[in-house]
Parts: sequence; structure tokens; C-alpha cells
Amino acid sequence: MTTDANVTARVRASFEKQKIMRLLGATLTDVQRGQVEITLPFREELTQQHGFLHAGVVTTILDSACGYAALSVMPEGAGVLSIEFKVNLLAPAKGNTFMARGRVVRAGRTIVVCSGEVVALQNGKPEEGESVATMLATMLVVQDRPGITD
Amino acid sequence: MTTDANVTARVRASFEKQKIMRLLGATLTDVQRGQVEITLPFREELTQQHGFLHAGVVTTILDSACGYAALSVMPEGAGVLSIEFKVNLLAPAKGNTFMARGRVVRAGRTIVVCSGEVVALQNGKPEEGESVATMLATMLVVQDRPGITD
Amino acid sequence: MTTDANVTARVRASFEKQKIMRLLGATLTDVQRGQVEITLPFREELTQQHGFLHAGVVTTILDSACGYAALSVMPEGAGVLSIEFKVNLLAPAKGNTFMARGRVVRAGRTIVVCSGEVVALQNGKPEEGESVATMLATMLVVQDRPGITD
Amino acid sequence: MTTDANVTARVRASFEKQKIMRLLGATLTDVQRGQVEITLPFREELTQQHGFLHAGVVTTILDSACGYAALSVMPEGAGVLSIEFKVNLLAPAKGNTFMARGRVVRAGRTIVVCSGEVVALQNGKPEEGESVATMLATMLVVQDRPGITD
Repeated sequence: MTTDANVTARVRASFEKQKIMRLLGATLTDVQRGQVEITLPFREELTQQHGFLHAGVVTTILDSACGYAALSVMPEGAGVLSIEFKVNLLAPAKGNTFMARGRVVRAGRTIVVCSGEVVALQNGKPEEGESVATMLATMLVVQDRPGITD
Repeated sequence: MTTDANVTARVRASFEKQKIMRLLGATLTDVQRGQVEITLPFREELTQQHGFLHAGVVTTILDSACGYAALSVMPEGAGVLSIEFKVNLLAPAKGNTFMARGRVVRAGRTIVVCSGEVVALQNGKPEEGESVATMLATMLVVQDRPGITD
Repeated sequence: MTTDANVTARVRASFEKQKIMRLLGATLTDVQRGQVEITLPFREELTQQHGFLHAGVVTTILDSACGYAALSVMPEGAGVLSIEFKVNLLAPAKGNTFMARGRVVRAGRTIVVCSGEVVALQNGKPEEGESVATMLATMLVVQDRPGITD
Repeated sequence: MTTDANVTARVRASFEKQKIMRLLGATLTDVQRGQVEITLPFREELTQQHGFLHAGVVTTILDSACGYAALSVMPEGAGVLSIEFKVNLLAPAKGNTFMARGRVVRAGRTIVVCSGEVVALQNGKPEEGESVATMLATMLVVQDRPGITD
């Protein structure tokens, strides 16, 4: 087990390597042991045909939030890989800002199960946030595989 | 029911409105009634921390391929919305080119179930394509809802 | 919208028609609007090869708990059908008593999304209950289809 | 790797220990390396409120078919545990006989991904079989854990 400062540093360092986050404009806005938040401002380049955020973009920030929540409880030197996830789209992804929160549901030696949620905010009014998607994900603890750390 | 030419035109017109496809660099490479293919060349901007295509990007092209496969069998004027999907990541998404293929498994009046697969190609050698992900998705047939057509 | 007493009566009447519940020995132990609990005592006849409750039995009580949670928020005369669900098995299903709780996450006109959990109790010590499974499910509101009410 | 005769014997021996199969009346009707079939005759005791086979029963035979398909490709001495599965119910489960077929999609050292399908037959006319459900499942290869073999 690592200290909380190490957990944050480790997740942050790995997040910085996810080049897709930069392309989308997503940032890491909170890291705790077992819980991670990623924030994404709306941009037209990220939309599907009706002008909503594409479900795949919603999934991208959910997967990273869940994956890093899982990584935050893994032993040092281990890496995380998504085995699978399911996403329910609860409402059209309309809003100015989207916050994906992932948290660990169950941490085993090999498998970490996480759940995630994306909340859409209108004009930065957090009290009007609406849940637009929920994820249930299975993450693999990868050890001793070259190239797969963090 | 529409003619096959109409099906292709309808899917193509809707795909052109998905701005995220342009940002990722994905193109629509095949449309048939009940089956759609989207192709995405590898770019470093699309990667996760180990240098593979991010699972969320894999999901983005799978979701569009499945959604348009569903739309291709819907009555004219109906729109498609993803209700939910599950993705299994079968292997690290390494390759030069990724092809997502969605097809209709069951088309009902309200619900269309689709399956999808992403194959990774190395240096354009299709014979060495490897399946890197599989999706099982549920799509909603949306009728009479303003703003949701195609 | 119906009164709470009607909600309970409606769910209870439908549950009584689920003959599989009698075969398994499951009973309906709590009904509220948007939330339903089903309880199943352990029996050897319900096990898989390692002596745990079979994942399919876990799923059976989860599906009914989620389905009836969904039904409890539907208009009178509507019926409920499971479109799909995903279950994560979090721990081997060991215990004397299993409690499945389903609750509504999002209720739409056509689609109701529910989540569920199964907790295993040892010797009736609820304080030692362990979560053994979690479900994320999509239910269909069925109207005007003969034979499909409640 | 074991011989095909050993694969069949191993799966059959484990299936015999699944007491739930006897309660439901399900039998193992085909075992090949990477593919397993389980057959279940309709009985009223297995139904939900509309008289169809309960989705949980459909899932039970699918999970065992997928789990044993996975076990059939694992090294001797390993055991199989279901990590998670997703099921889409494609049509009401009406029929006289239900056949669940599971097959391996991808076999890794730790994780085996399987897909499954349930076909409903009317009066034993296989040519009229209808697909009523599809599963996408993730199985864990369990080694060196007491009590978890086969």
C-alpha cells in the first residue's frame, strides 16, 4: 500500500500519458484512494448527429475514471487494463461540463470491479447536475508484463 | 422500407453530422442494410497510457457502427439512440488500422439489438487482422421526438 | 400513478404468478415505489459445482427484484419485460440467506433502468452481510400488448 | 492440454455436481473443446408471470454452457468462476425445448471470454428454432485456490 500522496502522483502521471485526454480536453480533477474524477468541457467537435456528446466520448472519460480508481488501490508496479464494461445512457448528454466519477466496488487480487457515473452540468450550476450515464466495469490487475505498468 | 441506395444515403448523411468522427479521423467504409463498417487509422493522439488505442475510442467507433446498423433497418423518419452497450476488450488495441463492424442481431419495433467487432490490422495486411473488441448493444427506435431523426 | 398500497398489491400479485420463485423458495420481503426486495434461503439444490449458489440463481432473484422495482413505477395496465442485464459476481455466493434488492435508477416512458445487489447473510447476522453480486438492468414498459400486463 | 475424451469427461463430471441443473431438469447434450450445449425442456415450474421461461433460468443454462466452454480449454487442475455476464433477451422464451450453446471467443491465461445463445424449439422442430437470448461472458481461470477445481 502506498501513501495517499503517492496514489495521487501515480494516477496523475499515468493520466498525463493518455494522449486521448488532451485531444478531448479532459482533465483529472480529483483523485482519492478508490475514487477518481475526470472533467470534460463540452465542445462541438465531440458530438454525435443530434448535437449531444457522443456516447463513446462519455464512455472514454468513464473508462479512465474507473480504470484509475482501480489503479489507485493496486500494489505499486502493477498496471491496469480494462477487461470489459457496460454503459447505460440515461439521458441525452447535454450540458456545458461533464464530470465522470469512478469508484471501486470490489478490489480482488486479480480483478477490480468499479462503477462510474457521468453528471452533466448546465452553466456551471452543480445543483442542476443530471446523471447522463452509468458504467459497471471490470479491471484487470496486471503484474510482471513488460510495458504494462500503471 | 427504403431502397438500399436510400439506406446508404441516410446513414452517410447522419454520419457526416457526427463531428467526433472527424476529430478521431474515422470514416464510413461500408453500409449495407443491417451492417455498417467504420475505419479508423491509428494516431498517437488516440492512445491510453501504454500506447494502445484507448478503449473509449474503440467503443466510439463500435457504438457508431452498431447504431448505424440499427438505423439502416428502421423506418424513415425514425432516429436512433443508444440505450446501453457492453464491450469486452479482447486484446490490446495495437495496429495501424482499426475496422469496427456493427450488425443487427434482432430488430423489433422499439428495440434493435446489435453486435459489433473491432479488428486491428498491421501494415494493411488484412489476413493478419486480430479481433481486439466485441460489443453487444441495445438501440432505441425514436419516433416523433423533435430533434431526434436519423 | 397509483397509491402505495396499490403498488404493493400489484407487485405481489405478479410475483405470485412467477412459478420459478416457488421452485427456488424465494419470497417477496419488501415492496416500495421504486424498490423491491426478494429473499432466498440457501438450499443445496440451488448450487453449482463448488457448492455456492449458482450465478444463474443469483441472477434470477436479481432480475425479478429489478423488474418489479421497474413495474412499481409504471402506469397501471403496463407490463414489464427485461430487455437486458449485466451481472458482476463480486464474491462466491456463500451464506444461509440471500437478499436481492432492486431499485430504479432512471424511469423513462419506454425504458426503465434499474440496479440491483445481492447480499449474503451468515446465520442471520445481517451485520455480517456481504455483497456477492451487482446488476445493471434495462426494463421495457410494455403497453397494449395482449398477455403482457404486470 | 488434455485429449478430447478427457475434456468431455471433465466437463461432464463438473456438470453432474451442479445440483441446480437437476432441479431445473437441464442436461448436458454436447461437449467439444471450446463449445458446450445444455438442453432444458419447458416446465411450468420455470416460468415468470406471463408464462414464459424466466430470464434467470435462461441465464442459468447460458452461464453453465459458457462456463463449461471456458473450462474445456483450461489447463488440467484449473477451476472456472464467472466474473460477469451480460444477457440480451431477444424474444419471449416460448417453446417446448431450450438449447443453450456457449463457445469460447478468446482464451487468455487468466481470462476467457465466451458468447452464448439460447434457441427455443417448438414441438421438436429444430428448423423452427428461434434465438431468444444472447450472452457475452467473462470467465476467470482459477488456479491454486482450494475448493475451486473444475
